[in-house]
Amino acid sequence: MSERIKDIGEFPLIERIHDLLNREGLRSERVTMGIGDDTASFLPRPGYELLVTCDSLVEGRHYLPGQISPLDLGRRAMTVNISDIGAMGGHPLYALISLGLNPDRLIREVLEIYRGFLLELNPFGASIIGGNLTHSGNGIFIDITLIGEVEQGKSIRRSGARTGDVILVTGFPGQAAAGLQLLLRSPPAPDLLKHPLVRIYNTPSHRAQLGAAIARAGLASAMIDTSDGFLGDLGHICVESNVGALLVKEKLPISDPLRQAALSLARDPYDLFLGDSDDYELVVTCRLEDVAPLRALADRCGLPVPLTEVGRITSEARGISMIHPDGSRHPVPSSGWDHFRLG
Amino acid sequence: MSERIKDIGEFPLIERIHDLLNREGLRSERVTMGIGDDTASFLPRPGYELLVTCDSLVEGRHYLPGQISPLDLGRRAMTVNISDIGAMGGHPLYALISLGLNPDRLIREVLEIYRGFLLELNPFGASIIGGNLTHSGNGIFIDITLIGEVEQGKSIRRSGARTGDVILVTGFPGQAAAGLQLLLRSPPAPDLLKHPLVRIYNTPSHRAQLGAAIARAGLASAMIDTSDGFLGDLGHICVESNVGALLVKEKLPISDPLRQAALSLARDPYDLFLGDSDDYELVVTCRLEDVAPLRALADRCGLPVPLTEVGRITSEARGISMIHPDGSRHPVPSSGWDHFRLG
Repeated sequence: MSERIKDIGEFPLIERIHDLLNREGLRSERVTMGIGDDTASFLPRPGYELLVTCDSLVEGRHYLPGQISPLDLGRRAMTVNISDIGAMGGHPLYALISLGLNPDRLIREVLEIYRGFLLELNPFGASIIGGNLTHSGNGIFIDITLIGEVEQGKSIRRSGARTGDVILVTGFPGQAAAGLQLLLRSPPAPDLLKHPLVRIYNTPSHRAQLGAAIARAGLASAMIDTSDGFLGDLGHICVESNVGALLVKEKLPISDPLRQAALSLARDPYDLFLGDSDDYELVVTCRLEDVAPLRALADRCGLPVPLTEVGRITSEARGISMIHPDGSRHPVPSSGWDHFRLG
Repeated sequence: MSERIKDIGEFPLIERIHDLLNREGLRSERVTMGIGDDTASFLPRPGYELLVTCDSLVEGRHYLPGQISPLDLGRRAMTVNISDIGAMGGHPLYALISLGLNPDRLIREVLEIYRGFLLELNPFGASIIGGNLTHSGNGIFIDITLIGEVEQGKSIRRSGARTGDVILVTGFPGQAAAGLQLLLRSPPAPDLLKHPLVRIYNTPSHRAQLGAAIARAGLASAMIDTSDGFLGDLGHICVESNVGALLVKEKLPISDPLRQAALSLARDPYDLFLGDSDDYELVVTCRLEDVAPLRALADRCGLPVPLTEVGRITSEARGISMIHPDGSRHPVPSSGWDHFRLG
């Protein structure tokens, strides 16, 4: 149980991963070559566009060693990528995993990370078809490329928002960000990992099923996930669509757990909602008449969180403003997560 | 000219990379969304299978900082991936780049790495359609996912070698490996980077044009690149095809520069040829009657190195043997590069 990579070497480790994928992963008929040759190969489905995204998690930068289990780490790394496919309205199909490891790493931990990937992929019938193990020098890095598909012409871009469109958001952005702050500020206690917001930080939800359903129904004008923070990503929509946004502060969905955590962190809960990343919710814009069908669709998809109307798209190019409870209106600087400055 | 990432931040750096790609990179009509949304998207070509591979280079593990220019680093990282697509008989189409960087890195260096990617992609009309920048903590890591295509049913696997097939190899495996040994053993001198074998290590060649031509012509029974070392990769063919191989030592293409370098390194040139990785040549097996057409094809492709017949596939399952100049025959242990043991 305490076997390490250096005890068995690269090729036997690859075999064990392969065995795990065969036992616990799914296969697709369209995959003509999985792991085991120079490249993987598959037959694309006629009438569909392919979507491709990649995202990395680096130990010590995107997660804290010892503060997340290997299983949750795998889930989180895959969720981040699934969220991107979902935000285009797509369905995840195939993943390639590039893993940077050091020889002291436990075999068991590596297999648990893969189990985490499968936990997130299996509900979509998606599979791991390739990858690469490499010596990272120090901590782990996980780089995932995820390929998805969407019916031709149905993908939802950042660039389609129009003046008058309603802005909606799923769930409670800021909760995962507060979870991270709790992890960073508290002395490490075993109970902290069970804190609901820390759980949300470690294994955030994606809304890819809803995203795909919205695309099929053609109900959104623009869509994005909140991976750069709510404001940063709404800002991306404004820039790409050449529009502005007017938010209503009272409507922003700030959850009770977020309010409580913000209090103990001496942070403004609205700052956590607006500015911080780490939640993978959807920001959706749609025409006024599509709000009711969108809500009905979210119900049919069993969306486990609210879908909240938070404002409107305006013609004020690229400007985001907020109406405060006293009726005053102030511009909000659009800012997103910058790995190299804030990090 | 000495601007660093921390001076400008992530999003302006992404913009500069984007500008560079627009100026110096190519576009494909089939790409429906490039960089600039949650995912990239493209329309696959009917009648073609898609090939996907990923490979990483980690500073200090796969290359030595200060001993390779950023341009060559980009070229090398892309070549490794192009070689895999070529070894399946495919044509490279789209790359996604995941780059781990630290804030002290020079902007100029990052752009040069991208220029290196384009130098290798442009001859194929291939383009960079997505990626991800992340804070690596320490050194650079470059993880590339490369997507290619091959006419349906034409890809060349490791599993098709049959008893009696001829084994051929392109170029001079071992040369890049010797270049690395020169880098590792010498005190760093500026002239060393100009040594022909160090140049070959820093910017190895791929044989992807030849690989794709062989697949189109249907002339090979199995094909692989030598990324795990000649013996390791011939071993992969033997395992996947359930065959053996008989090599003729005198026929192995050991170049004069390799012999000289081996002498100064006190290494057996055959060990460098057989065991070490770092060269990206092709090992091809084919029926006896296809050798002449294969040679003619290599000429038409302008293959700048010899295509050498080095042995035959045998029925001796998974065993590799060698005939020595005195006529004796000895088994050769099949071994490949193991990042976690030898590394």
